[in-house]
Amino acid sequence: MTIDETTTVESVADTTPAGVDSAVDAAASAAGPWAAVELAERARVLDTIADRLDAHAAELIPLAIRETRLPEPRLAGELKRTTFQLRLFAQLVRDGGFLDVRIDTADAQWPMGVPRPDLRRMNIPLGPVLNFAASNFPFAFSVAGGDTASALAAGCPVVVKASPGHPELSGAVGALVAEAISECGAPGGTFGLIFGRDAGVRALLHPRTAAVAFTGSTAGGRALYDLACGRPVPIPFYGELGSINPVFVTPEAARSQAAEIASGLLTAVSSSAGQLCTKPGLVAVPEEAPVLAELIAAAPAPTGELLNDQIAAGFEKAVEQVRAHSAVGVLAGGGPGAALLLTTTARAVLADRESLMREMFGPATLVVTYRDTAELHELARSLHGELTVSVFGDRADDTTRALLAAAATVAGRVLWNSWPTGLSVTYAQQHGGPYPATTAPSTTSVGTAAVTRFLRPVVFQSVPDDLLPPALREANPLTVPRSVNGAPAQ
Amino acid sequence: MTIDETTTVESVADTTPAGVDSAVDAAASAAGPWAAVELAERARVLDTIADRLDAHAAELIPLAIRETRLPEPRLAGELKRTTFQLRLFAQLVRDGGFLDVRIDTADAQWPMGVPRPDLRRMNIPLGPVLNFAASNFPFAFSVAGGDTASALAAGCPVVVKASPGHPELSGAVGALVAEAISECGAPGGTFGLIFGRDAGVRALLHPRTAAVAFTGSTAGGRALYDLACGRPVPIPFYGELGSINPVFVTPEAARSQAAEIASGLLTAVSSSAGQLCTKPGLVAVPEEAPVLAELIAAAPAPTGELLNDQIAAGFEKAVEQVRAHSAVGVLAGGGPGAALLLTTTARAVLADRESLMREMFGPATLVVTYRDTAELHELARSLHGELTVSVFGDRADDTTRALLAAAATVAGRVLWNSWPTGLSVTYAQQHGGPYPATTAPSTTSVGTAAVTRFLRPVVFQSVPDDLLPPALREANPLTVPRSVNGAPAQ
Repeated sequence: MTIDETTTVESVADTTPAGVDSAVDAAASAAGPWAAVELAERARVLDTIADRLDAHAAELIPLAIRETRLPEPRLAGELKRTTFQLRLFAQLVRDGGFLDVRIDTADAQWPMGVPRPDLRRMNIPLGPVLNFAASNFPFAFSVAGGDTASALAAGCPVVVKASPGHPELSGAVGALVAEAISECGAPGGTFGLIFGRDAGVRALLHPRTAAVAFTGSTAGGRALYDLACGRPVPIPFYGELGSINPVFVTPEAARSQAAEIASGLLTAVSSSAGQLCTKPGLVAVPEEAPVLAELIAAAPAPTGELLNDQIAAGFEKAVEQVRAHSAVGVLAGGGPGAALLLTTTARAVLADRESLMREMFGPATLVVTYRDTAELHELARSLHGELTVSVFGDRADDTTRALLAAAATVAGRVLWNSWPTGLSVTYAQQHGGPYPATTAPSTTSVGTAAVTRFLRPVVFQSVPDDLLPPALREANPLTVPRSVNGAPAQ
Repeated sequence: MTIDETTTVESVADTTPAGVDSAVDAAASAAGPWAAVELAERARVLDTIADRLDAHAAELIPLAIRETRLPEPRLAGELKRTTFQLRLFAQLVRDGGFLDVRIDTADAQWPMGVPRPDLRRMNIPLGPVLNFAASNFPFAFSVAGGDTASALAAGCPVVVKASPGHPELSGAVGALVAEAISECGAPGGTFGLIFGRDAGVRALLHPRTAAVAFTGSTAGGRALYDLACGRPVPIPFYGELGSINPVFVTPEAARSQAAEIASGLLTAVSSSAGQLCTKPGLVAVPEEAPVLAELIAAAPAPTGELLNDQIAAGFEKAVEQVRAHSAVGVLAGGGPGAALLLTTTARAVLADRESLMREMFGPATLVVTYRDTAELHELARSLHGELTVSVFGDRADDTTRALLAAAATVAGRVLWNSWPTGLSVTYAQQHGGPYPATTAPSTTSVGTAAVTRFLRPVVFQSVPDDLLPPALREANPLTVPRSVNGAPAQ
């Protein structure tokens, strides 16, 4: 998703340089103690944060409405998703599988030619994580959102750089997180909250920061990524940046599913005023599908207000750039409170990819008409990194197989006859993809696998049982899942 | 390990820019077909490469001796390790567990508040991998070494940038790899070989290169890392750079294991003329351990020639820098063909970390004397990222626990009463660590987990069975290990 990082609400003062250093130093001091907290207790902290958020929903949601202009049902659902997510990570921590314990017992006959020593490997936390919160999900991708939950689950302290879009809500959620941590007796520095763009940069450059999570614009994310890589000691930067989330509708599906596709598209483009990282921004439909185009053009697509004036201005600018192209027309909408449906041809897109394949963060999409399946395939092969690619089709044939295969080469998530919005938080979820969708294509920012971003493996060689971390001891006192000599064992 | 990348042997011409582009383009064209090769067939290619190398040992080893000056037994052992490694990755591919298949079945009651769709996730190859080969392991970390084996296992084509230290051997091994690939009917572009520093940089900057593996010096690796991160589309750079591999000997161990430690140290420092990424470069011993120091000083530590004149010059320079420090003296050795044992105090190291904690790539180490365990702990806490840290002790007590804990915070591998040289290739192995040991602390370049560097997950949402990749189909036709709804299933 695409949001610039300029402060838009001035009600909370930027954190001073000394305040930033203090937050990161506190996180660094808490790193050892927090990593050493027993798994069951670490899980209890996550559950307690979830409980506190739920208990204060009646105060938090009105605050969120005021600062984000999002409607109550959306925010209530998002808060539910957020506390569910915290509890899912708590469950993951209790299970212990994320430690990825692998044990090789000593083997004098190991066929490498040299005896194999006893090797016991597990994941340990990376250290203090800096989390740049997003504006468009004031709960689920913000102070107590997925990045914070997964970093805490990994055993890392977290410093959140609050989104400028909802500072008071950030402060309120941050206070609840800090209270929960304190109530559980976890180290105070395990969680910190800072405000302001300069504060975020300072924290990123702080020598004790070990990793960064970011959700925001491609331009802003790239600038921070460059800073993270350019440090004397570079650190991992997990950035979720921009995505167009193309949708390919086959000629068959355009006929047989016209009504469903038209209505689904309008919902996907207009809900949350289109301010979703997974909003479909390009929909390829056959030229010869007047029914589908008419349905799209005819249906109303009411949409709410944008998050704030800055995002509204960014949206307007992005739309203007696409609209200014000579091959682009307006299919429908675009008035106040209505989603905007632009249209152009696949030929135009293929001829000027840079101008026409660009994210418009807000309630707009570009309906692209293709002449034949050859052109559809060419369009599919022209994509760069994406969070999602969706294919609407009727059956398994050469066209749908080729589209799905092309989709998998550029996207983290590939969908069939469904819309990419409404991302589920699950074990198998993958919310990521090649650049510019993210800066780390092998990782996800949603789902339980998000925890691995904040871990690194350590192997212990020939260390006696009483000196090993509990998860690696012969008796497996933590009863974590383990693999032994290359095969799963309990 | 630390080797500069300047060409030292001129017998093979640098690859031209057109040649580089051609190799990367061929790899990019092979990416789809190679990824699509069935797992059993992919494994057969790895086995066939191993078989060819074994069959040509009688030609390859003399070539390696001539170009690297390493002794025959070491090279024969290394070739055995290399072909074992290829076969271990073949076994990994056949097993299919590296695909990390996770399936969430559709669940209308998913407690997130929104029905969960069917989600099926697996790892797919990243695309063409550029592998900068190392000089010090002409087989195991070179053309058909661990990076190549793990990238091919992942389903990625590989372009190797040959080490300047053994160009003819690189060419010979490369020809055997190419023959094996051709014999198996795999796409020709699956493997390419290029020569020359400029060629390597050009390949790294090529838009179709998807990831980079590097083993070499901190300076050279950092420069290439910066280029990889600075591309318009940044790509993952898996660099294994420098490490001092500190060893901590407790007062008790210095008494009870003096003879074993002295002899083990001399072997670890002198074998392969000290040109190992895991050579112990700093050994902390108690001041009050005259027996240990005398044993170290008295024993002969014969060592072979260095790999080439450039490495010899680099070693001499690094040694001179440490030796020039006013607090550093010579404990023993240092003549032609003998390992050099320098000595200083922990106080001096703590006062001037930058000058004294530096890698000397060759047969030298710095014996550091500490006054008391407080100073020993301070030394342990002062470390930066390391591949390994070793602790020699007699029992589990506060000192050894604290040393092992400090070791785990900075190193990828932590050893007890053993030396870090002689790295085993296994399932649990971890050869990595925080910067500057590597540029990617969550990854390993040795052991089966090395394959994950070249994979990224893709999730398929609501895709019908007959359109799914075989590994994700309901019937599990490939019989790969999978987890379903968060728990392992077969």
